[in-house]
Amino acid sequence: MTTYALKTPYLVFLGDAEDLLMAKVAKGIAYWRPEKCLAQMRLENAKADLNLPDMSIREAAEAGAKTFILGLAPTGGTLPQQWIPLLIEAMEAGMDIASGLHVHLNDIDDLVMVAKRTGRRLLDVRTPPQTLKCGNGRPRSGKRLLTVGSDCCVGKMFTALAIHKEMEKRNISATFRATGQTGILIEGAGVPVDAVISDFTAGSVEQLCPANDQHHWDIIEGQGSLFHPAYAGVSLGLLHGAQADVIILCHEVGRTQMDDLEGYPVLDFDSLIKTNLELGGLTKPNIRLGGIALNTSMLNEQQALTEIAYYQNKYKVPVVDPVRTGVAAIVDELEK
Amino acid sequence: MTTYALKTPYLVFLGDAEDLLMAKVAKGIAYWRPEKCLAQMRLENAKADLNLPDMSIREAAEAGAKTFILGLAPTGGTLPQQWIPLLIEAMEAGMDIASGLHVHLNDIDDLVMVAKRTGRRLLDVRTPPQTLKCGNGRPRSGKRLLTVGSDCCVGKMFTALAIHKEMEKRNISATFRATGQTGILIEGAGVPVDAVISDFTAGSVEQLCPANDQHHWDIIEGQGSLFHPAYAGVSLGLLHGAQADVIILCHEVGRTQMDDLEGYPVLDFDSLIKTNLELGGLTKPNIRLGGIALNTSMLNEQQALTEIAYYQNKYKVPVVDPVRTGVAAIVDELEK
Repeated sequence: MTTYALKTPYLVFLGDAEDLLMAKVAKGIAYWRPEKCLAQMRLENAKADLNLPDMSIREAAEAGAKTFILGLAPTGGTLPQQWIPLLIEAMEAGMDIASGLHVHLNDIDDLVMVAKRTGRRLLDVRTPPQTLKCGNGRPRSGKRLLTVGSDCCVGKMFTALAIHKEMEKRNISATFRATGQTGILIEGAGVPVDAVISDFTAGSVEQLCPANDQHHWDIIEGQGSLFHPAYAGVSLGLLHGAQADVIILCHEVGRTQMDDLEGYPVLDFDSLIKTNLELGGLTKPNIRLGGIALNTSMLNEQQALTEIAYYQNKYKVPVVDPVRTGVAAIVDELEK
Repeated sequence: MTTYALKTPYLVFLGDAEDLLMAKVAKGIAYWRPEKCLAQMRLENAKADLNLPDMSIREAAEAGAKTFILGLAPTGGTLPQQWIPLLIEAMEAGMDIASGLHVHLNDIDDLVMVAKRTGRRLLDVRTPPQTLKCGNGRPRSGKRLLTVGSDCCVGKMFTALAIHKEMEKRNISATFRATGQTGILIEGAGVPVDAVISDFTAGSVEQLCPANDQHHWDIIEGQGSLFHPAYAGVSLGLLHGAQADVIILCHEVGRTQMDDLEGYPVLDFDSLIKTNLELGGLTKPNIRLGGIALNTSMLNEQQALTEIAYYQNKYKVPVVDPVRTGVAAIVDELEK
């Protein structure tokens, strides 16, 4: 499979971001893969700070930086014109450019020309690989975990990254499998499942997490929700392609409306779990619920622990808040 | 929405097809839309025959042909080199070219050049419109029927076209909504849902069959099956985007294995109906089963009628074989 295979270490570009909300992707990379981040580069009026050494392009190149990361979400996803000379400078200094922007670097003639001349790569991580196949549903070896959601943006990527990190800490053989652009930039590899031609959705996930050693875990980032009126097809293709042994249900406590869509309340856990297991059972008959990950940030500590205890008692699986409690309880259960 | 809006009438090209199996799309167009077909054009050694007048490009152009239809499935989906001069001649004679081939006419420089010079269009109906949006799930007016399947290739397009034709015969306001390349070439408009970026699957269907007069029926061609390990995501996006009042379950009698995929038997009707209604209920709460369409071609007349009676008694909805019995019983029920 063609993945992005970003070269390390990175120079993480923060532009003129005023805070880390505007630099969410950069923040994710620095948080989850600090060992890959050599330095940050900030423009004069930037206020965001990843607590990485500040370097210029020249300094970073001399220190060995191999990829310039555009880890920002500028308004509208477009690329400010004044950044183009910086990208050219970075390529001339020996770096690839990796971007999660909506606008494709490969559509900008000036950049493509310099990339050709210098032999550098323009990596648009929203563009899926060109070598995708349709799914075949054939059983494959290795263990797989998929995070599924009650909605978009409820912590599916965060939970998967946290479980992967906990497994690494315990020397469990595991790979994080990214399915969205932020996850891909964090991991440096993956398939942007929501950008794949619909016929290839399940197939692209089969390619993303192929057969593996029987003790190896693929920890797969979920997308959307089976009950999202726009994206459920993506979630189902992902569920079928993953052939997950275990799903982890992710939810943000207090979320009642789905993706701000009027008339689409967030469903109860019973329905979410039942439907994911029933449909997932098509390609993995013994699929099971391995835990629930709650984002309890809107609750205080006591409320959060009460909420966690309630679901743990109800579903008899580990229930965690990856930020507040960590995910050790889930991995404990998987190790049994 | 950008649809293909093929100009009529058509010159249907049969190449050197030995039989109508090789010219399935052409056959479908001539069968379902004879009023749009001016003539057929066959190369010297062709044996297929649509029972249309034979014309050369010049003769057809003089008789008013506006679109040259490449309604063939050449081995590998590629375009034989010796056909390119014919396509150029057709454009120079005033026709657009519409193609359902895997190879894109718009990727062939010689054709693109002539299209520009003559102002003709190269219509690759496998290429989805560029103006797609994500779904929003908002309820919309008008009535919609979607054919759903137990598998691929079980008669979903045929059933939808037959119901549409029956409605036209009865002067019921109705539009056939094509979602695959054959359907698009037959109707001259549509969206190739399986070629859409997965994030836009449901949204593309919302655009395909927008809000309409409350008595108008959109008859939507289904794709795949919710239990197909490769394509279920497409089927679910289609189901959600369609907001169908009525689904018609399509099945080929005798099919036991799904799409020749080992380990994936065709599911029982109970599961198929229940899952389609449950999941479809997300965007259309009062979705209902409006009938069952069986392809009974492998049975004799008596066996077929017994089979039909069995399911009709079991599910208390009209059960038909669109070829053997017609679909009047389904439309009768919809008119009640």
